[in-house]
Amino acid sequence: MSKRKHLKIGLFGFGTVGSALFELINTIRPEGVEIKRICVRNLAKARNVNAEFTDNPDDIFNDPEINIIVELIDDANASYSLITRALRQGLTAVSGNKKMLAEHLPDLIALQRETGGTLLYDASACGSIPVIRNLEEYYDNDLLISVKGILNGSSNYILTKIFKEHMPYDRALKLAQEAGFAESNPSLDVDGWDALSKLVIIAVHAFGLYVEPARIFTFGISRLSDADIRFANEKERRIKLVGHVEKLPDGRLCMAVLPQLLTTEKYIYGVDDEFNGVVIKGLCYDKQFMFGRGAGGFPTGSAILSDITASQYDYRYEYKKIQSENIPEFTNNVAFRIYYRYCDPADLNLINFDSISEKYTSDSYSYVVGITTLAELHRVAAQLRKRNVFLAAYPKT
Amino acid sequence: MSKRKHLKIGLFGFGTVGSALFELINTIRPEGVEIKRICVRNLAKARNVNAEFTDNPDDIFNDPEINIIVELIDDANASYSLITRALRQGLTAVSGNKKMLAEHLPDLIALQRETGGTLLYDASACGSIPVIRNLEEYYDNDLLISVKGILNGSSNYILTKIFKEHMPYDRALKLAQEAGFAESNPSLDVDGWDALSKLVIIAVHAFGLYVEPARIFTFGISRLSDADIRFANEKERRIKLVGHVEKLPDGRLCMAVLPQLLTTEKYIYGVDDEFNGVVIKGLCYDKQFMFGRGAGGFPTGSAILSDITASQYDYRYEYKKIQSENIPEFTNNVAFRIYYRYCDPADLNLINFDSISEKYTSDSYSYVVGITTLAELHRVAAQLRKRNVFLAAYPKT
Repeated sequence: MSKRKHLKIGLFGFGTVGSALFELINTIRPEGVEIKRICVRNLAKARNVNAEFTDNPDDIFNDPEINIIVELIDDANASYSLITRALRQGLTAVSGNKKMLAEHLPDLIALQRETGGTLLYDASACGSIPVIRNLEEYYDNDLLISVKGILNGSSNYILTKIFKEHMPYDRALKLAQEAGFAESNPSLDVDGWDALSKLVIIAVHAFGLYVEPARIFTFGISRLSDADIRFANEKERRIKLVGHVEKLPDGRLCMAVLPQLLTTEKYIYGVDDEFNGVVIKGLCYDKQFMFGRGAGGFPTGSAILSDITASQYDYRYEYKKIQSENIPEFTNNVAFRIYYRYCDPADLNLINFDSISEKYTSDSYSYVVGITTLAELHRVAAQLRKRNVFLAAYPKT
Repeated sequence: MSKRKHLKIGLFGFGTVGSALFELINTIRPEGVEIKRICVRNLAKARNVNAEFTDNPDDIFNDPEINIIVELIDDANASYSLITRALRQGLTAVSGNKKMLAEHLPDLIALQRETGGTLLYDASACGSIPVIRNLEEYYDNDLLISVKGILNGSSNYILTKIFKEHMPYDRALKLAQEAGFAESNPSLDVDGWDALSKLVIIAVHAFGLYVEPARIFTFGISRLSDADIRFANEKERRIKLVGHVEKLPDGRLCMAVLPQLLTTEKYIYGVDDEFNGVVIKGLCYDKQFMFGRGAGGFPTGSAILSDITASQYDYRYEYKKIQSENIPEFTNNVAFRIYYRYCDPADLNLINFDSISEKYTSDSYSYVVGITTLAELHRVAAQLRKRNVFLAAYPKT
């Protein structure tokens, strides 16, 4: 059996997750894990901890004792340059930066092959739930039908406050920020971008397929209005922001992030607050459901720590599915039923519907229920985001 | 990145799971996986499949092409001798035999170290849910507080029929058997033995501690009466058969399998039918919940197939936690509140209670609610099983 490696960590970033990781390591003192040096942007900022800080990345990269880089900074570009530098040095790198990963995964996979460096990022999708590692190791591509889930803790927290406590949107968003669940730029959470990044990463490990984020229809909850909430309540459904990747009957994959009107029977209907929940559907095992805390310093910190301790045993993603001969193709050509609410009557014409089965108009707002395609929604996505409209997938069951 | 090995399987057993695995492999044709020969007890039995059968294990063990043994037979002793023989030959072995594993894990771990052979058994606990692999790979011993779950699909199916459809116990048991969820000996399911085996395996991978099954208090649902169901309904709870392993404040571990009266807020309250659900509680991530099909040919077959495909990449359990320096000790010295129902008044004296907070007597049956210890219950377990009594953990919340 293999031996546990001794790791000396060079840590980048000391925000919510970085400081939680530091506290975690100092509290539980995992065998053979120590933080050697921490690189931060602003050295002058008071930090009441006993650790060696620097603002110069070279102090980490040139330290021959440091054998693992843990990167927990916000800025995706800076994150990418740190990670690639680490991999080029043959180091192990752990990252939680979903946006960076979603944009650069193919490069980073190639770079790992080329340099022998290792990149781990289980914390990047669904915080404490080990989704990536399970998809990578356990769920065979051939058997997998879909992965669907609540991937953003902050927006789910907001939706829970709205639907269960009838709180106004703005107050719920503020609460989420105060609790440390929200990204520093709230649009990343509430407009679906954070969930989109996670979905891109999940699809790579679930189906071996990388799809550029820009090709995937993404719509968030920032335009959610009282009318939309009323509609959901009338239909005895709840609105959740859902990311999904699904194999169609023709073998191709569709992907999207958008609000969904869910019936009570759905597993993810009951995923509340900042929790994340992922339903993995397969040919033989039907549905499996994984559920846990998807946001916050300590849950994310513990996922980072799991990557660190896994790398003590030289764990690395094998990217088996990417090497497979039958990687499915991506498509937006899939029809589904949506609820579409608008205020300016002209906005009805933004989307071409194949058919409309329900229509409501009033002086203040109107809505339709109709069939359209993901391709059509993707075509008009940028326009939709500029208008006071809201839409949600509205499946029959 | 490592290469996918070509596997030629020698399969032992062609019952519910064995034949499902065969069908699975023939349907999805995973790259580099083929079943070379199948060893069964009774060659004369008609099997409408195109495969090479034998009733002589030597035909498998002496075939130099066969590089993996998959053992899906009922008999724990025969299973043990097949698995040890395979490991001694340095082969990879995959087993779903929980009873055999629960009895022999320490030997089998030692034998793997000695021979370099590999034993995988993710299907042995919770069917399609990858519990073992997650505990082994992802959840650090130091952070883990408890693992608690519905580990037996068949008894859960029966309890669901009883509580949700008001079906009599006997009919529910018969239905479970017809659906192929039940073990051939129903006592393994309904008296908690199957859950016990799984719990022993889970504790090894969760905390690095092996505890002989005989040391763990185990009580099932076969004595469940209308009175018990009424009690649960009055208290707005549901009875589930739960296995748990939990770190106590003093750092020691307690373990038990017994019915629990669960409130609606518990994650496992809603785990119905033949599904299994496991709640993993940790220091930083609070609770995580994994849920999926825990019984039946295809879900279990797909878990076996996951072990097979993992071994194409030389995956093996590292048993990291067993090598740890701080493996917790086992104890039965833990107090908890139980509901205890009896018919013969003398049976009240079987158990010493520290205190009794509720008491009901009638001509036909009586019950108490009181505080006792696991050690006390374990002391009288054999007597309890002979009497017409029922008990369930009855936590305050």
